[in-house]
Amino acid sequence: MAIQNAWLLRTLRDVPADAETAGHQLMLRAGLIRQTAAGMYAYMPLGLRVLRKLEAIVREEMERAGAQELLLPALQPAELWRQSGRYDVYGPELMTMTDRHNRSFVLGPTHEEAITSVMNGVINSYRQLPLTFFQIQVKFRDEMRPRSGLLRGREFLMKDAYSFHSDWDGLKRTYAVMYKAYCRIFNRCGLNYRAVMADAGAMGGDGDNHEFIALADIGEDTIAVCNSCQFAANVEKLQESLDEGTADQSETCPSCEQGKLEYCKGIEVGHTFQLGDKYSHSLGATVPGAHGRESELIMGCYGIGLSRLLATIVEQHHDQRGIIWPSAVAPYQVHMTIIAVKNEVQMKLAHQLYDRLAEVGIETLLDDRDERAGVKLHDAELIGIPIRIVVGKNADEHRVEYSERSSETKEVVHVEKALELLLQRIQLHRTHEI
Amino acid sequence: MAIQNAWLLRTLRDVPADAETAGHQLMLRAGLIRQTAAGMYAYMPLGLRVLRKLEAIVREEMERAGAQELLLPALQPAELWRQSGRYDVYGPELMTMTDRHNRSFVLGPTHEEAITSVMNGVINSYRQLPLTFFQIQVKFRDEMRPRSGLLRGREFLMKDAYSFHSDWDGLKRTYAVMYKAYCRIFNRCGLNYRAVMADAGAMGGDGDNHEFIALADIGEDTIAVCNSCQFAANVEKLQESLDEGTADQSETCPSCEQGKLEYCKGIEVGHTFQLGDKYSHSLGATVPGAHGRESELIMGCYGIGLSRLLATIVEQHHDQRGIIWPSAVAPYQVHMTIIAVKNEVQMKLAHQLYDRLAEVGIETLLDDRDERAGVKLHDAELIGIPIRIVVGKNADEHRVEYSERSSETKEVVHVEKALELLLQRIQLHRTHEI
Repeated sequence: MAIQNAWLLRTLRDVPADAETAGHQLMLRAGLIRQTAAGMYAYMPLGLRVLRKLEAIVREEMERAGAQELLLPALQPAELWRQSGRYDVYGPELMTMTDRHNRSFVLGPTHEEAITSVMNGVINSYRQLPLTFFQIQVKFRDEMRPRSGLLRGREFLMKDAYSFHSDWDGLKRTYAVMYKAYCRIFNRCGLNYRAVMADAGAMGGDGDNHEFIALADIGEDTIAVCNSCQFAANVEKLQESLDEGTADQSETCPSCEQGKLEYCKGIEVGHTFQLGDKYSHSLGATVPGAHGRESELIMGCYGIGLSRLLATIVEQHHDQRGIIWPSAVAPYQVHMTIIAVKNEVQMKLAHQLYDRLAEVGIETLLDDRDERAGVKLHDAELIGIPIRIVVGKNADEHRVEYSERSSETKEVVHVEKALELLLQRIQLHRTHEI
Repeated sequence: MAIQNAWLLRTLRDVPADAETAGHQLMLRAGLIRQTAAGMYAYMPLGLRVLRKLEAIVREEMERAGAQELLLPALQPAELWRQSGRYDVYGPELMTMTDRHNRSFVLGPTHEEAITSVMNGVINSYRQLPLTFFQIQVKFRDEMRPRSGLLRGREFLMKDAYSFHSDWDGLKRTYAVMYKAYCRIFNRCGLNYRAVMADAGAMGGDGDNHEFIALADIGEDTIAVCNSCQFAANVEKLQESLDEGTADQSETCPSCEQGKLEYCKGIEVGHTFQLGDKYSHSLGATVPGAHGRESELIMGCYGIGLSRLLATIVEQHHDQRGIIWPSAVAPYQVHMTIIAVKNEVQMKLAHQLYDRLAEVGIETLLDDRDERAGVKLHDAELIGIPIRIVVGKNADEHRVEYSERSSETKEVVHVEKALELLLQRIQLHRTHEI
């Protein structure tokens, strides 16, 4: 496995010309992704490992929140989108295709219509409710100008979830549980974010909805945050509050009326909606209530852009030398570099340590390429795995260099000490996660 | 979790009219899948659990064979398919779409062109070779007549793998490793299958290729198997052998010339190809060799239809009452039924047992629905989880009914004995797997 591992290190020396943001540049340079068409990317093995970590965190928190996983087709009959009225709302952003029998399909950017249609045939008593489902699936959106790599792609990975209720009270209870799950997910991913009240936009619905905005200067969304209380809102929503509350368009917080508002740029990584009966009404999805009378299902929906989340983490966690992965989502925990692969002492010590790490389940990337030391150390900085072990000239004394990507300190220690240090560090992070 | 679990049991009483095969009927009746359009299916939670088990087995065996996972976009520039010449070969089976800028894309039924194009930019030395990549991904094929549920769908899940080599010897070595991995996968899934020499068809390529055919009367492929030696072949390939070997179109085995050929029906669940330079030639994918001269990459490709595999397992493992899951792919290991959910003694004993099973990591489906006992026991037969525990009137003596789906024996035993029996049975199967 070691040799295959090392091959993953296909880094680029030059900054790709068309990559605007630091994160996009780093993802290309570190070999996480490769572009295949405008707004479409291949996840290379190193990038896919991070994506799988994100999926695992999301899956765990969705299941903790009581949601069940299913998987719907990507292709949806266009008729469903005409029934809900969204075929025209989405317009040219909707990717469509026609089959050999001339039937039209939508390449789903989201699945409200599809799941409402499936569940209408399945939910047959209010006693089954509430029910929440989620899926992790490829989505499509024909962006006019795809940009910033995975931040705004045309084919991307999402976690979308949908909850079904017999009344609004039920929806509000599940919504609160999902809101907490979202906070746990973004905290575990090491994201600096704010949850803000937002507008429903193309999704529609009567109830509250929240955007989860990761703070980043290159973001396309602007949010206002009070420097005194917990108030945070997107700017459109803020205009509403200000108009309603006071004619004075000042920078005083409309909630506590004391703090000042600060405006920040951010990236939307999640969105939760209280849809109400928007889709069940247009698609005729009903359930018999306690007294036998059919009533429309009340719904919520909850999305996280997983490929965008991956890109956002890189935007927030890097320096001039490369990525600095948070432990919980790092592609590997340990990056071990062998300085001279033709030196038998170094090779032997490195492989012994590699095997011991593998035994206790620690994922290690072993760089045993026959390359100059400088190239390999440079790649380790770029790829940004949390813990680095360099096996070099001190190998004959069983000593290695231990360092962490997030710190400037390097120390040459006995291999047993290095093992102890890295186990401590990994244990520390695992404890923090739970 | 228990309540959500029970909801999974949304079985249908009636046999769906348009489901032709026993497996397709059972998958619909047991609530594993639901149709959303012709040849398109939603995987409901119970069905998705089985699919995830298959994915895990495939992933494990691919990694054991040295393959690395990546993920390519589903959408591929149509231009690539024109370059390889397959745009016309596939014809109307190829699903296509045009984006808002009038550029044509293929919804990939397979990814030879896409991966060759990506790797051409990445592989830059023969010393990196051999390299094998795999992905688990949704695929599209516009079947003229989709049928038999997941056996021939229009949107389906595949594991596709691709290997890259500097010469044919390298390809043949990796091909042999992948062939063994395929045998391990299908054995672990409990499949009765044969690997047969086959024609390349639309995939092309100069070398050997094999089909992995699961034996099933409802299959659309016919293979010939010698009753004396190891010879097995598909019928087209057999005609070739017979024509070359002897003018006599007898039923004598062309290999050992002693045994008789028997013809069986089967379902193709996997296919491996020695492609050679078919794609690297048409797409200009080269690598500098040992003496610096560029030569075309030599390739192999290896596919398994995961959704079809799921359906095939049901075709091979059922009786008149329902599915009989092989342990390794069962959605849960234990199906626990509470006869009277209003009886506190039964509820308490069942939940205690459920918690103990959860502690040791045994997946249990707890049926605590307020339904007639007959309905619940009938559903347990239909869904076909390997081990069943019924908590009923003997609960006050701490006794439960233990039975296995694959046997007719039922025994009422102390709950500790039941636990012992099921741990033994699960342990037995885990040992067999490895």
